[in-house]
Amino acid sequence: MKAIGADDGFALEDGNKFYEFDIDQPQPKQYDLLIRVQAISINPVDTKIRQSPVTQAPRVLGFDAVGVVEAVGEEVKHFKVGDEVYYSGSPSYQGSNQTYQLVDERLVAKKPQNINAVEAASIPLTGLTASETLFDVFQISHKPDENRGKSILIINGAGGVGSIATQIAKHHGLHVITTASRDETHEWSKNMGADIVLNHKNDLTDEFKKYEISEVDYIFCTFNTDLYFEKMIELVKPRGIIATIVAFKEKQDLNLLKQKSITFTHEYMYSRPLYNTEDMHTHRQYLTDITEKIEAGVYKTTLNEVIEGLTADHLFKAHQKIEKQSMIGKLVIQL
Amino acid sequence: MKAIGADDGFALEDGNKFYEFDIDQPQPKQYDLLIRVQAISINPVDTKIRQSPVTQAPRVLGFDAVGVVEAVGEEVKHFKVGDEVYYSGSPSYQGSNQTYQLVDERLVAKKPQNINAVEAASIPLTGLTASETLFDVFQISHKPDENRGKSILIINGAGGVGSIATQIAKHHGLHVITTASRDETHEWSKNMGADIVLNHKNDLTDEFKKYEISEVDYIFCTFNTDLYFEKMIELVKPRGIIATIVAFKEKQDLNLLKQKSITFTHEYMYSRPLYNTEDMHTHRQYLTDITEKIEAGVYKTTLNEVIEGLTADHLFKAHQKIEKQSMIGKLVIQL
Repeated sequence: MKAIGADDGFALEDGNKFYEFDIDQPQPKQYDLLIRVQAISINPVDTKIRQSPVTQAPRVLGFDAVGVVEAVGEEVKHFKVGDEVYYSGSPSYQGSNQTYQLVDERLVAKKPQNINAVEAASIPLTGLTASETLFDVFQISHKPDENRGKSILIINGAGGVGSIATQIAKHHGLHVITTASRDETHEWSKNMGADIVLNHKNDLTDEFKKYEISEVDYIFCTFNTDLYFEKMIELVKPRGIIATIVAFKEKQDLNLLKQKSITFTHEYMYSRPLYNTEDMHTHRQYLTDITEKIEAGVYKTTLNEVIEGLTADHLFKAHQKIEKQSMIGKLVIQL
Repeated sequence: MKAIGADDGFALEDGNKFYEFDIDQPQPKQYDLLIRVQAISINPVDTKIRQSPVTQAPRVLGFDAVGVVEAVGEEVKHFKVGDEVYYSGSPSYQGSNQTYQLVDERLVAKKPQNINAVEAASIPLTGLTASETLFDVFQISHKPDENRGKSILIINGAGGVGSIATQIAKHHGLHVITTASRDETHEWSKNMGADIVLNHKNDLTDEFKKYEISEVDYIFCTFNTDLYFEKMIELVKPRGIIATIVAFKEKQDLNLLKQKSITFTHEYMYSRPLYNTEDMHTHRQYLTDITEKIEAGVYKTTLNEVIEGLTADHLFKAHQKIEKQSMIGKLVIQL
């Protein structure tokens, strides 16, 4: 079977060090599903890990996949051969940039039947990140009525995570304020369900005044946390919650949280699989819920661009696009 | 009426700048209660604010009081003249180091009837801090059965906040691990309900191994957050929550929270009164609940030392004792 990997961490300016190679098809054990991969998506985490040292070469990246179950381990209970599924998976396994991949069934859900594999590949990592942030970190209710009157600011609403977070938050009754700066990102974010789209080229305090927003219950930062750290503290309510998915470049003054008793979380979608937590199956539950909502027409795909064919060259081009940080919605590679 | 105040912020080594003076008795308006103060307690926050610049001299400190309602504002609904009450109050008002004080009724509860004013004065600030941390930050359930299997580490279990936090956590079904280092603090913390008391003179990783504790759901730091920041991240579960009430001296690396998706809160009991939040009456609810639990014999006073008579000299001595940071339980001044 075919895989795309690299022997070392590398920067884009070093040129393309991805290469195609043949490896034996892996065998599923215990909770493993063996998946024939149909489509994958590229996320910012791919570009970050690509630059980090490789411990076992070649390293296969890829953290989002849609595919068909080809074989199952002896403990598998929720899936059978032939099921169409999607998942983000675990950094403990080789990634999805290959024709077959193993994944733990606790991290997997049935793919929505009303969208194709390419559309579905846009969902898992971003959907899980948004679900964990909204339900685990902000602890919003699953009942929309209980969230009425609550508001969320999503910084960078048109990115992959921002796009699905906006849909989930809006559906669950929150007042959703996002940020964007270009006409096309503004329109995209509105289309995802944002009530108000602020222009993040302007000072957000001024933007809040312009739209008569006094403060918000939750802030979800999906872009440059250092830049927004103090501003988020200013804009969130007393006893409000701030979450980020973007690592800091600088150390920060945590005393700034004190006056308002602010809660801060560094959300990382891989904590559960990485630590093999007892509640790892939460990922299956979150993805199953998203599947149901997509099939009911509540959520829609965040797919924006497709590359046909998994090759070392195409993968490199996809990394170039993502690393620019100007992507709207999601980029998917169809195998 | 008599008050104790100071015209400038001062360090203890500057000598005693507290002095006694006469002022007019304040008049209650709106939600105000006028309280004849019977006993007050001294907290670390007193010693910190004492050292900060004074904006309006003389400044009257004091953030815990027990007393009798002498008069009420026109909007007061929950109390009447003659009620015995206790409260921590608000930094927006002059403090409790005086014979009469105004306090907003939303921050006040009836004093437990089965303990005296001196015993009751040990409770409000620490009880509110512990309640907010447990119920608002950690979001533990009010139903003990729903908390079974969850564990909390309280750093410095024998301090004022640690002593009441231990009782509340234990009563609500948590497995409570505290730290102490002296024989008397170890015994005190056990007496407050701690299941395990670790020795914080030893490395806490070693202490966890010794007592076969793998990791905890919640960590509440009531002593030297800089010292424990990285250690708490090591000892808390994935997706666990850390809260502190002690300001940092240094900036910190928030990326350390990422791997486990850890949540961090800088709890500050005065956020609600300071911002006059809609849910400010939560303080009345928390204190009322504590009153009921004390009257039912569930919680006990954390009083450990009493000074008779509110004088500038006695207040200075109380600040000396608290600033040493070796206090067990609470220090109260009886008027």
